[in-house]
Amino acid sequence: MMRTRPLKVALLGCGVVGSEVARIMTTHADDLAARIGAPVELAGVAVRRPGKVREGVPAELVTTDATALVKRGDIDVVVEVIGGIEPARTLITTAFEHGASVVSANKALLAQDGAALHAAAEEHGRDLYYEAAVAGAIPLIRPLRESLAGDKVNRVLGIVNGTTNFILDKMDSTGAGYQEALDEATALGYAEADPTADVEGFDAAAKAAILAGIAFHTRVRLDDVYREGMTEVTAADFASAKEMGCTIKLLAICERAADGGSVTARVHPAMIPLTHPLASVRGAYNAVFVESDASGQLMFYGPGAGGAPTASAVLGDLVAVCRNRLSGATGPGESAYAALPVSPMGDVVTRYHISLEVADKPGVLAHVATVFAEHGVSIDTVRQQGKDGEASLVVVTHRATDAALGGTVEALRKLDTVRGVASIMRVEGE
Amino acid sequence: MMRTRPLKVALLGCGVVGSEVARIMTTHADDLAARIGAPVELAGVAVRRPGKVREGVPAELVTTDATALVKRGDIDVVVEVIGGIEPARTLITTAFEHGASVVSANKALLAQDGAALHAAAEEHGRDLYYEAAVAGAIPLIRPLRESLAGDKVNRVLGIVNGTTNFILDKMDSTGAGYQEALDEATALGYAEADPTADVEGFDAAAKAAILAGIAFHTRVRLDDVYREGMTEVTAADFASAKEMGCTIKLLAICERAADGGSVTARVHPAMIPLTHPLASVRGAYNAVFVESDASGQLMFYGPGAGGAPTASAVLGDLVAVCRNRLSGATGPGESAYAALPVSPMGDVVTRYHISLEVADKPGVLAHVATVFAEHGVSIDTVRQQGKDGEASLVVVTHRATDAALGGTVEALRKLDTVRGVASIMRVEGE
Repeated sequence: MMRTRPLKVALLGCGVVGSEVARIMTTHADDLAARIGAPVELAGVAVRRPGKVREGVPAELVTTDATALVKRGDIDVVVEVIGGIEPARTLITTAFEHGASVVSANKALLAQDGAALHAAAEEHGRDLYYEAAVAGAIPLIRPLRESLAGDKVNRVLGIVNGTTNFILDKMDSTGAGYQEALDEATALGYAEADPTADVEGFDAAAKAAILAGIAFHTRVRLDDVYREGMTEVTAADFASAKEMGCTIKLLAICERAADGGSVTARVHPAMIPLTHPLASVRGAYNAVFVESDASGQLMFYGPGAGGAPTASAVLGDLVAVCRNRLSGATGPGESAYAALPVSPMGDVVTRYHISLEVADKPGVLAHVATVFAEHGVSIDTVRQQGKDGEASLVVVTHRATDAALGGTVEALRKLDTVRGVASIMRVEGE
Repeated sequence: MMRTRPLKVALLGCGVVGSEVARIMTTHADDLAARIGAPVELAGVAVRRPGKVREGVPAELVTTDATALVKRGDIDVVVEVIGGIEPARTLITTAFEHGASVVSANKALLAQDGAALHAAAEEHGRDLYYEAAVAGAIPLIRPLRESLAGDKVNRVLGIVNGTTNFILDKMDSTGAGYQEALDEATALGYAEADPTADVEGFDAAAKAAILAGIAFHTRVRLDDVYREGMTEVTAADFASAKEMGCTIKLLAICERAADGGSVTARVHPAMIPLTHPLASVRGAYNAVFVESDASGQLMFYGPGAGGAPTASAVLGDLVAVCRNRLSGATGPGESAYAALPVSPMGDVVTRYHISLEVADKPGVLAHVATVFAEHGVSIDTVRQQGKDGEASLVVVTHRATDAALGGTVEALRKLDTVRGVASIMRVEGE
C-alpha cells in the first residue's frame, strides 16, 4: 500500500554527514520508499556556502535561508546536521512550530537542551529522533529507549569518542607520548585542527548526558557530567597499566547508585583490564557496554563517527519518523519520569591506581598506609621501587568513594616523605 | 498523561522465560506503566500443568485453556513463550483474529511461518514482535528493521547459539573432544538432555532465516538455510585452527551476493582468525556482526539465552506493542519487497581449510595441486608433513565457490595417492 504523495525532507547542513544523507536519499530512493510506505523527497538543503558544488544535490534545492526552509509549512521532516547550539536550536523549535518532525545528530544541543526540545516536540505532536548524536552508526538510543524499555539499566560504560580512542590506542601500541599520537591523529584526519572538544572530554560528556538520561529515565544535563580530559595521560601511565594487565581508555560511565536512588555520569581516562571487551576496541571505533537487571551485559560496537556511518543512523531515524507521520502516531518521547538526582563525583565508588614519588627511607610505606587508613580507603596492593634515595610507590586501592580518595591524596601531598603524586588513575571494568 | 484502564496481557507458557516475564511485570509494574503511558496487567496465564506453584503468578489467573484465553476479546497483547510449531501457531493466529497484538519468542515458528503470521497480523491491523526469538536479550531485530532501515545490509555473521559456543569454547581452551565438552555443557545446564537442535545447527538455522529475511527485506525460509552441525569438529581441527592463528565457531552467515541479485543463508562450523572480535566470544554468549554500505561493521554482543535475558527482550517488545495500541498505530510489519532469490550453498564463495591423508611419495603434491587447478580452486598455502610412508597435506584455498570446492574434494577422493580427506572446514571473517 504505497502512498504516492512524497514526504518532504528539509536538510539543514550539507557537510560530511549532510552530503551523505542527500546522496543515500537519492541513490536508495526506491528502498526508502518501500520501507517507509511512501516516497521521500529532498525538498530543500540549507547551507552556508551556496556556491560550493555538491554532487547529487540539485542546485535549485540549495538555499542559505534555513529559517524560511523550516517555515515553509509543507516540510514533513527536518534533518538537522549543522551541529552546535545556535542556530540549530531555534531552527528545530521553529520546525516543530511549523508542523515538521525532526531528526538531529546534534549531541551538544541535545545534551544541553534535550528537555526543552522534547517538550517542544510533544507540544506540537511531533517526533524528535537523534540516534546519530551518540556513537555514530551504532544503534544505542533506540536499543536503550525501546529494546530495554522493559528492563532496568544499572550502568552504561563506553568508549564514545573515536578521536581519543585513536590517540590512546596509538600510545598503547607504539609507546608514543600524547603529543606525538595527537599529531598523527591530526595528520590522518582523526583529530580536528582544534581537538579540544575531543581530548578534553566535552564531546564524550555530551554523549554521557544523553545516554544517562535515556538509560535511567531521568534528566541529566551536560553540567551534571563530571569531566576529565586525557591530555595528561603519559607513556608512563601506559607502562603502569601494562604492569597491572590493563590498558587506558577514555570512558563515559553512567551509573545508578547501589540503592537506586540517584545516578552519576562521568567522563575520564581509566585503566581497564586487557580481558575486558572494551580493551580491544581499536582505532577510532566506539563500543558501549550496557548492564541491566534482566538482560545482563550487552555490548554495542561500531564506527562512532564519519559521514557515511552517521548518515546511516540519520536515515534509520528518518524512516522511523516518516512511518510515524504516515500512521499519525509519534514514537517514544522524553522519558524522565524517574526524576532521579544526579550525585556529584565525590559519591562515585571505584578503584584507584596512584603513583607516588617518595623518599627512599624506612617508614615511608607506614606513613602512606596510615593516611589511606585514616581516610577509610582500603589498599589492595602496594609496589615499592627505589634507588639513590628516591623511590616510587604504586598503590592500588579497593573500592572507595572519589571524595575519600581525594581527601587521601590531599593528605599525602602534605607528608614530608612524599615528594609528589605522579599520577592518579581510576580502575574500571572489573 | 496516564490512561487508567490497564492494558491486558495474556501469557502463553510459564516456564523459564514466562515466569520471568510474569515476575518482572509484577515487580516493575510502575516503571512499565510510566514507559507505556498506561498500566499493564497480567490477565491470564496459560500453562500445561496448573498444579505447579508459580511464585508471583496468582493462582486465579492460571488456566490450561490457552485457546479460551486468546479468544476472550479483552486481551490487548498475547505473549507467546510456549515454543514449537503447534499449538503456538494456531494460538497466535487466533489472537490476531480476536484483536490482540502478539509478542513471541518462537524462533522455530517464525522461521517456518513468519510470512503467514505477518500477513495475519497485518490483516487484523495488529503487531507481531519477536526480538526474543533471536539471540536472547541482544537487540538485533529492532536494530536491523529500524536502526538500519536507511542502510543496505550486505552481511550478517554471528554466533547465535550459546550451547554450541560453550562446547566449542571448552574444546578450544581445554583441548577436550566434542563428547567430553558436550557432557560438561549438559552437566552445567548449558545443553539440553537431547542437544540435537543445538549441536546439529537447527536452532541457529532458524535464527539465520529470521535475520536474513529482515536484513535483506526478502523472505528466507528455514528450508533455504544450508545447515551443518558441529558434532564432527575434533580436537585435531582445533589444533589445525591454532596453527592458522584461528579458532572454530559455529557461525550463522547471511550474505547478499556481490551483484546484489540474490542472497544466501547458512550455518556451519568455521575457522575464524583469533583477531576477529567473534573469536573472543566466550562461553554461552552470543554476538552478531552486521556489515552495511553506510554504517560499516557493527557488532551486537550479549547473553543469547536464559530466562531473564529472554524476558528482557520480550518486555521491550511488550512496551513497544502497548505504546502502539495506545496510539492506534502499528510498528513495522514484514518487509519483503526486495523478493530476492535465495541461492543454494554451491554458490557461496569462501575460503577452505582441507586436511588430506596422502601417500608419502614424490609427486603427490603435484597430483593434488592439479586437481585443485582443474576445478578452478586457487591454493593459498600448502603444508606437508610426513613420516613412515604416511603423510598429511593441509591445503588452504583462496576464495572459491562451495560447488567448486565440493567438486575438488570429490576428485581428490578418487586419487590413488589420497588415502582420505580428514577434514574440510570453511574459513570466515577475513
